[in-house]
Amino acid sequence: MNDLPKSIQINEEGPREGFQFEKAQIETQRKIDLVNALSKTGLKQIQVCSFVPPKNVPGMADADDIIRRFTPAPGVRYTALWLNEKGLQRALAAGKLEVRGSIALTASETFLKRNQKRTFAENIEAQRSIIEMYKANNVPVERGSIMAAFGCNFEGDIPLERVLATAQQVMDLAAEYGLQIKVFSLADTMAWATPSAIHRTVGALRNRFPDLRLALHLHDTRGMGIANAYAGLQMGIDIFDTSVGGLGGCPFAAHRSAAGNVCTEDLVFMCEEMGIDTGVDLEKLVDAARLAEEVVGHPLPGSVMHGGTLRRLRDRTRAAA
Amino acid sequence: MNDLPKSIQINEEGPREGFQFEKAQIETQRKIDLVNALSKTGLKQIQVCSFVPPKNVPGMADADDIIRRFTPAPGVRYTALWLNEKGLQRALAAGKLEVRGSIALTASETFLKRNQKRTFAENIEAQRSIIEMYKANNVPVERGSIMAAFGCNFEGDIPLERVLATAQQVMDLAAEYGLQIKVFSLADTMAWATPSAIHRTVGALRNRFPDLRLALHLHDTRGMGIANAYAGLQMGIDIFDTSVGGLGGCPFAAHRSAAGNVCTEDLVFMCEEMGIDTGVDLEKLVDAARLAEEVVGHPLPGSVMHGGTLRRLRDRTRAAA
Repeated sequence: MNDLPKSIQINEEGPREGFQFEKAQIETQRKIDLVNALSKTGLKQIQVCSFVPPKNVPGMADADDIIRRFTPAPGVRYTALWLNEKGLQRALAAGKLEVRGSIALTASETFLKRNQKRTFAENIEAQRSIIEMYKANNVPVERGSIMAAFGCNFEGDIPLERVLATAQQVMDLAAEYGLQIKVFSLADTMAWATPSAIHRTVGALRNRFPDLRLALHLHDTRGMGIANAYAGLQMGIDIFDTSVGGLGGCPFAAHRSAAGNVCTEDLVFMCEEMGIDTGVDLEKLVDAARLAEEVVGHPLPGSVMHGGTLRRLRDRTRAAA
Repeated sequence: MNDLPKSIQINEEGPREGFQFEKAQIETQRKIDLVNALSKTGLKQIQVCSFVPPKNVPGMADADDIIRRFTPAPGVRYTALWLNEKGLQRALAAGKLEVRGSIALTASETFLKRNQKRTFAENIEAQRSIIEMYKANNVPVERGSIMAAFGCNFEGDIPLERVLATAQQVMDLAAEYGLQIKVFSLADTMAWATPSAIHRTVGALRNRFPDLRLALHLHDTRGMGIANAYAGLQMGIDIFDTSVGGLGGCPFAAHRSAAGNVCTEDLVFMCEEMGIDTGVDLEKLVDAARLAEEVVGHPLPGSVMHGGTLRRLRDRTRAAA
C-alpha cells in the first residue's frame, strides 16, 4: 500500500490512438497543433502516429507529413508505431523519431488468430523475423510486452500461468538474440482487469522476474482505468501508456465499447494530488485535452478536463484568504 | 491491501440524484418505471426522491405521486431526503419509506455558509433542532455524516484535524441526546478526494473511533470515483452511496462539472470481479442503467453500461469451447 513510486513516466499515445480511431477526416495541421501543444506540457514521450497502409487506416495517411511538420521540443522523445518493414523504414526515414523495437506476444491465441491471423507458434516465428529486421536496421530492442494479459473477449479469463509462460517466451526470444529487455509492458487490451487482477498479475510477474521494470497499458472501457492504475502504483509500477482526453475512446454508447485508453490528465491529476511527480504541467495538459476535443469535434471521455483541476480552486481560495 | 470486505451494502441514490438534477421534465410514470426496475436488481436500499419545495426543485414536484405509485419489492428499503419538518412529515405520511434521521455536519464553513447560510456554531444549533424534530416524531437517528470531508471548492483542502473534530462534534451531539451512531458517512461532496486521501482520512477516523462503521459518498467529477471506492474497500469500507448510470452527472462538458456520483454498476462490476458480494444482479442493473439513460434522454457517464459486462463474454466463450 505504501510502495507508491516517487515519480512516474508517461508514454502519451493520444495522437496515435486518436487519429487512428476517429472516423472523421481531421486536417493535418490540426493534428500537428495537438502534437505541438502536448510537447509543451512536460510530457517526455509522445507517440505521434502509425506508419500503416492508408487503405487500412485512412486517418494515418498523413503520418509522414505530420512527422515532417511538427515542432519537436527539447527533451521529448517522439515515437511511432509500425507493423512491418515498410512501416519501420518510414519511421527510420522520418529522422525526428526515437525508433525502438519490442518483442510483443499475446496471451490469448484466439485473439491472436483473429487479430493477426497467427497461432502462438506462428507468432513466435513472426517475432524472430521482426527481431532480425530490427537487428538488420540497428534498431535497439529493449521492451517486451504481452497483449490481452488480463482477459480476452473471445477467450475469457487468461490464467496467470499463461501470462507467466508468455513472459518467459519473450525473455527466451530476447536471450536467443542476445537482447536485454529493460521494460516489460502488460496490456489490458480488452479492458478485463480490475485492481485485484493488477495486484495478482504484477505480483506474480515480479516474483518470477524480479529485475524487470514493469509498465501498464490500460483501457478504460469498463471504467476501471484509473483504479487499475492506482493498483499498479501501489505495486510500484512507474511507467504507464495513456491517452490525452482519453483519445481513442468516445463517451457515446456506439463507440465507447470499441476503445478508451486510460486518460493522461486524469492519471496526472491523481498522481500529482498524491505527491507522485509526473513532470507534467496539469493545467497545460488539460488545455491540450480541450484542444484534442476541438480537433476531433466531439466530447472526449476525460474527467478532469471537464470537472476542472484543483489548483485554480486552491489559488482562488488562497487569494480570498 | 488484503482488508477487502467479503460483501458490501449499496445505497442506490440514482433516482433522487437524477430527477433532482435533470433539467428536462420527465414523466412521473418513467420515474416509477426506473424505481421498479431498480427494485428487481437485488439492490437492498433505494433512495427514491426528495421531499423539497417544488419551487426549489421542480423535478421533485411529483415526489408524493412517485412514492404512492411505485411497486415495492420485498426486502428492499426505500428512502427519501428532506430538509425540514414539512419534508419529514411528507416522508412519514408516505408509508412505504424507511424513515431514518442523521446528524450531518460539514467540514467547510465557507461551503456551509454558501449552501445552508449557517456558521459552524449555527449549524450545531440547527442539528439540535433537527434531532428534536426526529425525537418528537419517533424517528431513529443512527447515522452521522460529514460533508466536504476531503476538500472544498470555496475553502480548498480540509485539514484532517478538522474532519476528526467535526466527527467528534457529531458524536457529542449524539451523546447529548442519548443516540447511538451506527454508521458514519464521509462525503466527498465536491470531488476533491484521491485514493491516498481516502486511506489517510479513513485511517485517522478509524483510529479515533474504532467502533464506528464507516461509509463513503463519492463523486466522480474528476474521474477518481472508482479508484477512491477501491481505496475505501482496501480500508474495509463496506457501505457506499452510488447512482445508477452515474445519474446526477452528464458526460457533456457543460454539465459534467456540476455533479456525478460514483456509478453503481461500475462499482458492482469491480466488486463482483474481485470476489466481493454486492447482492446485485449486474446484468439487470446494467439494463436499469440503460433504462435510466432512456428516461433522462441523454447519455449517462457510466462505463460498464456502455462497455458491457464480462459475464456475457464468458458465457459466449464457454459455449464456443
